[in-house]
Amino acid sequence: MAGSQIGTLFQVATFGESHGLALGGVVDGCPAGLELSEADLQGDLNRRRPGQSRFTTQRQERDEVKILSGVFEGRTTGTPIGFIIENEDQRSKDYSEIKDKFRPGHADFTYWSKYGNRDYRGGGRSSARETAIRVAAGAIAKKLLRQAEGVTVRGALTGMGPVVIEPSRWDWAEVERNHFFSPDAGSVGEFEAYLEGIRKAGNSVGAFLEVHAEGVPIGLGEPVFDRLDADLAKAVMSINAVKGVEIGAGMASGHATGVDFADEMRPGVDARHPEFVRNHAGGILGGISTGQPIVIRFAVKPTSSILVPRQSVDVHGQACEVVTKGRHDPCVGIRAVPIAEAMVAMTLADHWLRWRASKPL
Amino acid sequence: MAGSQIGTLFQVATFGESHGLALGGVVDGCPAGLELSEADLQGDLNRRRPGQSRFTTQRQERDEVKILSGVFEGRTTGTPIGFIIENEDQRSKDYSEIKDKFRPGHADFTYWSKYGNRDYRGGGRSSARETAIRVAAGAIAKKLLRQAEGVTVRGALTGMGPVVIEPSRWDWAEVERNHFFSPDAGSVGEFEAYLEGIRKAGNSVGAFLEVHAEGVPIGLGEPVFDRLDADLAKAVMSINAVKGVEIGAGMASGHATGVDFADEMRPGVDARHPEFVRNHAGGILGGISTGQPIVIRFAVKPTSSILVPRQSVDVHGQACEVVTKGRHDPCVGIRAVPIAEAMVAMTLADHWLRWRASKPL
Amino acid sequence: MAGSQIGTLFQVATFGESHGLALGGVVDGCPAGLELSEADLQGDLNRRRPGQSRFTTQRQERDEVKILSGVFEGRTTGTPIGFIIENEDQRSKDYSEIKDKFRPGHADFTYWSKYGNRDYRGGGRSSARETAIRVAAGAIAKKLLRQAEGVTVRGALTGMGPVVIEPSRWDWAEVERNHFFSPDAGSVGEFEAYLEGIRKAGNSVGAFLEVHAEGVPIGLGEPVFDRLDADLAKAVMSINAVKGVEIGAGMASGHATGVDFADEMRPGVDARHPEFVRNHAGGILGGISTGQPIVIRFAVKPTSSILVPRQSVDVHGQACEVVTKGRHDPCVGIRAVPIAEAMVAMTLADHWLRWRASKPL
Amino acid sequence: MAGSQIGTLFQVATFGESHGLALGGVVDGCPAGLELSEADLQGDLNRRRPGQSRFTTQRQERDEVKILSGVFEGRTTGTPIGFIIENEDQRSKDYSEIKDKFRPGHADFTYWSKYGNRDYRGGGRSSARETAIRVAAGAIAKKLLRQAEGVTVRGALTGMGPVVIEPSRWDWAEVERNHFFSPDAGSVGEFEAYLEGIRKAGNSVGAFLEVHAEGVPIGLGEPVFDRLDADLAKAVMSINAVKGVEIGAGMASGHATGVDFADEMRPGVDARHPEFVRNHAGGILGGISTGQPIVIRFAVKPTSSILVPRQSVDVHGQACEVVTKGRHDPCVGIRAVPIAEAMVAMTLADHWLRWRASKPL
Repeated sequence: MAGSQIGTLFQVATFGESHGLALGGVVDGCPAGLELSEADLQGDLNRRRPGQSRFTTQRQERDEVKILSGVFEGRTTGTPIGFIIENEDQRSKDYSEIKDKFRPGHADFTYWSKYGNRDYRGGGRSSARETAIRVAAGAIAKKLLRQAEGVTVRGALTGMGPVVIEPSRWDWAEVERNHFFSPDAGSVGEFEAYLEGIRKAGNSVGAFLEVHAEGVPIGLGEPVFDRLDADLAKAVMSINAVKGVEIGAGMASGHATGVDFADEMRPGVDARHPEFVRNHAGGILGGISTGQPIVIRFAVKPTSSILVPRQSVDVHGQACEVVTKGRHDPCVGIRAVPIAEAMVAMTLADHWLRWRASKPL
Repeated sequence: MAGSQIGTLFQVATFGESHGLALGGVVDGCPAGLELSEADLQGDLNRRRPGQSRFTTQRQERDEVKILSGVFEGRTTGTPIGFIIENEDQRSKDYSEIKDKFRPGHADFTYWSKYGNRDYRGGGRSSARETAIRVAAGAIAKKLLRQAEGVTVRGALTGMGPVVIEPSRWDWAEVERNHFFSPDAGSVGEFEAYLEGIRKAGNSVGAFLEVHAEGVPIGLGEPVFDRLDADLAKAVMSINAVKGVEIGAGMASGHATGVDFADEMRPGVDARHPEFVRNHAGGILGGISTGQPIVIRFAVKPTSSILVPRQSVDVHGQACEVVTKGRHDPCVGIRAVPIAEAMVAMTLADHWLRWRASKPL
Repeated sequence: MAGSQIGTLFQVATFGESHGLALGGVVDGCPAGLELSEADLQGDLNRRRPGQSRFTTQRQERDEVKILSGVFEGRTTGTPIGFIIENEDQRSKDYSEIKDKFRPGHADFTYWSKYGNRDYRGGGRSSARETAIRVAAGAIAKKLLRQAEGVTVRGALTGMGPVVIEPSRWDWAEVERNHFFSPDAGSVGEFEAYLEGIRKAGNSVGAFLEVHAEGVPIGLGEPVFDRLDADLAKAVMSINAVKGVEIGAGMASGHATGVDFADEMRPGVDARHPEFVRNHAGGILGGISTGQPIVIRFAVKPTSSILVPRQSVDVHGQACEVVTKGRHDPCVGIRAVPIAEAMVAMTLADHWLRWRASKPL
Repeated sequence: MAGSQIGTLFQVATFGESHGLALGGVVDGCPAGLELSEADLQGDLNRRRPGQSRFTTQRQERDEVKILSGVFEGRTTGTPIGFIIENEDQRSKDYSEIKDKFRPGHADFTYWSKYGNRDYRGGGRSSARETAIRVAAGAIAKKLLRQAEGVTVRGALTGMGPVVIEPSRWDWAEVERNHFFSPDAGSVGEFEAYLEGIRKAGNSVGAFLEVHAEGVPIGLGEPVFDRLDADLAKAVMSINAVKGVEIGAGMASGHATGVDFADEMRPGVDARHPEFVRNHAGGILGGISTGQPIVIRFAVKPTSSILVPRQSVDVHGQACEVVTKGRHDPCVGIRAVPIAEAMVAMTLADHWLRWRASKPL
């Protein structure tokens, strides 16, 4: 496999480059009978869409998705759902300035080394534009999980550079009310002021995000290698610019002691559903979901495309200076919120199907 | 797939439980012609083996590996390498105390929920004993990478509870000289004193580990989903007790700005091998190896088996108290060093084979 | 996997239904650097295209393929090649006659049973229209094999109903000169006369086809399960209406004795390339290519859609009579020639990539 | 994947060579809760075991299977079932005669070409001895299908050289009463007389086999590529020496006309279960099971190891004569009966799990 597919039973494939005719995706394995229309996909696409505030790239794309197959008379048929998004803004511009230079932090150098060619028009396949397709596929996964099991998957931006929101101040209802997907209305001004400074300096900044999945049935995940947490880590780490992934207590676990860390249990509604007193585990034990909320936190690096000149080399091995002009998000982490939700939802949908298959006799 | 295999071309499968007759593994995809003997596997198995200091479980196992297939006249044949490790210490003991109780932090509850059964004899398949097989398979991957490309993969324990070693004090040569895999001789006493207190209190503690892979060719990794970093994150997160994984600058990336974060480049030995000034990327850009050292850091939670009583429930939904007697590591992170090296090596070996297949025309 | 992908390294996925907006495909894993344009795909699509003689369905489709990704400046980039074919002839017609009836020999009943729905507009996903995408993907595989190794893959119709062409009369050069893909000019008249009778009677007929691959390097194929012959059998059996597959001597092997069957060898150009006296093996021994021509023969059943009324049942379990009006090929085997070439080429391309990966050290 | 695994959810891996320490297998994906013991596997192993009549190799092997994992307190646990069969009869003999020669019809030449090495001790991995593991794994699949759905899978030898049994004379009850797995008591004498002549002449002969699966639920199989018939064709073609595979009417379909071929339907027990008047389809339409018996027929080539001298070459490219002494079955087709049942059962078990996963909402 050349790596453009993910999932074993709920399988998502993407294709397309930032400046090609269109990007597309195929979701194979969604069960028949799910009510589905383009509007279901468009909702999340609009959340990810650029050009909505001055803090995201000004590239103008409507990101209008067209479903080509797999839906008949308003319901999924059980066959592959193919869909495309046409690239509208293939702005004809002069690439001679950047064509032979490697932009630090970008995939320019590694693609060129691996493939012997390079799509200098905005990153080609390595562009975050590809993630639009993930968001569309994730919307299908989300709807499936919601309809079949009442699962909700939602994400938020919980920090950016020096500004980090305390969990006590989180309110999920706030997330959709601001352009930062911030779960705290009070922090929006702070984010805005800080990011405005970054943007004006031609700089960029990293961010912290968190995704929670609630209502996940007990038993999803396959030991030993395809643990639910392992597959979630892969899914989230596969998002452009992500450098770290945590489940539950995450990296802080290394400092903890067993007495404090234990997620004790007490009787719940019935013997099959005990109650967990805390959730350091992040909803997963032994690679299998416990029924508690699944909690994933991750960090996104600062946008590599900045206006401040950086030292680099070109394809001839000569030293050069690189300035990435153009329309770039000063904080790519913001738009990563719907992308991360999508990756988590796909992973859960896949394990939900596997769980159906593996029920004991 | 029921999740007991990992890898696309260098494929590792494991089987076996902590108290069954034997554990075993199959490595399918190792090219023919690699010199290999049981001694190559035994070396790393001995590094992971319990009972070597008072800080690891006193369970006595020689962990002697027997290769059953795939090697002929001292070299791999290209066909599957099957091997087993017999369980010697299946100590007959009384499980009635713990048989129906769920140990907090363990997979007892999730296995019981998922499978409708439970191997109460020491965790069964969820036991870290399964990782012995990973270590043996990883030794094959390591040897392949070393012979074919001169790659080295090595790990260290870089922190435990409150004690964290500064990178400036690291010396890889120290790692094999102490029972903690510490890269700093000076910290060994600190680890020892701290852990002795933890152990005597019937408590346990988490740890930080780091694995570096040097000499990795440029070009390993497949965009979009099977990125090298994504597959490494999955591989490491699939190790028992791991709660967070970082590549390069890791979680700290969320605080960084683009100007500081950029890994600038300058002319190197030739045009195909520029030099990177720093390595925030951890050796991977756009999911593909850059030729710089690959750097992975992760956190292991404290051992869940502790002597301090914790509140829990039993299979009947009744409240109970759990004390995990027996032979447990107060810090499972220590023995995770060779396991993590194995997981990283397997992942690199897999992508090395995929890289061979995907060379441009 | 929901079954719409094939291949491990050269991976082909298809989507789309007979009467949806478009059909599409994704080829993931084609190495970078292959010269490729839409014209390369269109050639084989035109060979499969209906409406070219009175012996194929009169449905009018130009089957014009549009490449959406994976090709830049005339060469493959190493990233997924996505392409679509729009459905033009979605003739609005009255389906009320057939909507609830199960056509004998069709997938109507099994899809309805499996998915709980049914695309009554011409078969939906089960329509042979999907094979247009396979043909396009196969054209990429063919070009890759030809450029990289000089492999040629070609098919012919070697029999239909009672008319079977003797191997001694085959001339591959004839195949492209007639509408039957017949390797014998002399048999074309016979095919024509016979099929005209079948067509006028509202009947249909089966066929025999053969595909040969020449120039295949020695060593393709993976024992034990992913043998080259096993994967070819799957690939060819996955074509609509195929009921039997033979490699080399095929079913006749059951009658043979060892003395007669042995493909003896004698010295060839060098020690690595001995000569085989005969080729009962069909170019494959132990699941691995020998360097001889690979020979696959298969049978296609008669088109199930016929004008002669047949007894059946409807979705309510009531007896009914079915007559399949409309535009159907009296012999679907004819157009199966380019489809089979495509399936063989994909399988060989996949094993060629696996072979590259598995070279001994 | 290096090809030693088969199946997506019911996954079977094998390892081991004819003259190594042991052969082994891993079945991953069998649901928890199935009653299972070594006796369940041993039954089919005994049916395949050599040395039971003078018509099978006289190699003495008890083929005693040992389950190492995945079964606890008499039931499957849901985790991988690992098992091994030790090689007892590693008769130390002189291989100098054959060591450098390529036996016609064997995998000697292709393995040597592909891997650069060769296990001259009886074929190594390419030996049919590997199929013992398939039989053991197939026994698990059979039991799962029987317990969960009442499916039966059984095979028979229906022809050998010139002797072919008419379907009208078949009686499944006879199969286990003779050493040929013949479904006709009356043909046993004929088989015996014919084969005795072949054996005395130092010759060998091919055979025809048939496997029927009854009670298979409607709906198993995934269009487009992973059709049930396509996966069955692969599974059966992956058996050593198989050269052709037919589903239902098989190769004869090429001669048939649509009017005769149609499997008409009439009302059955209820609307979901219509009755099929005939079964040319072999129980599969559009790649999906219809509920009718699944019928697979295949041909096995004559044993390549014969006493009559054949011309060949050696590793140095020199002409030579080869006589394969030793203990060989004059008709390998006989012992292929339990192997084929195993391959069919595995494939059905895999699709049964996939079917569970894909149920409509």
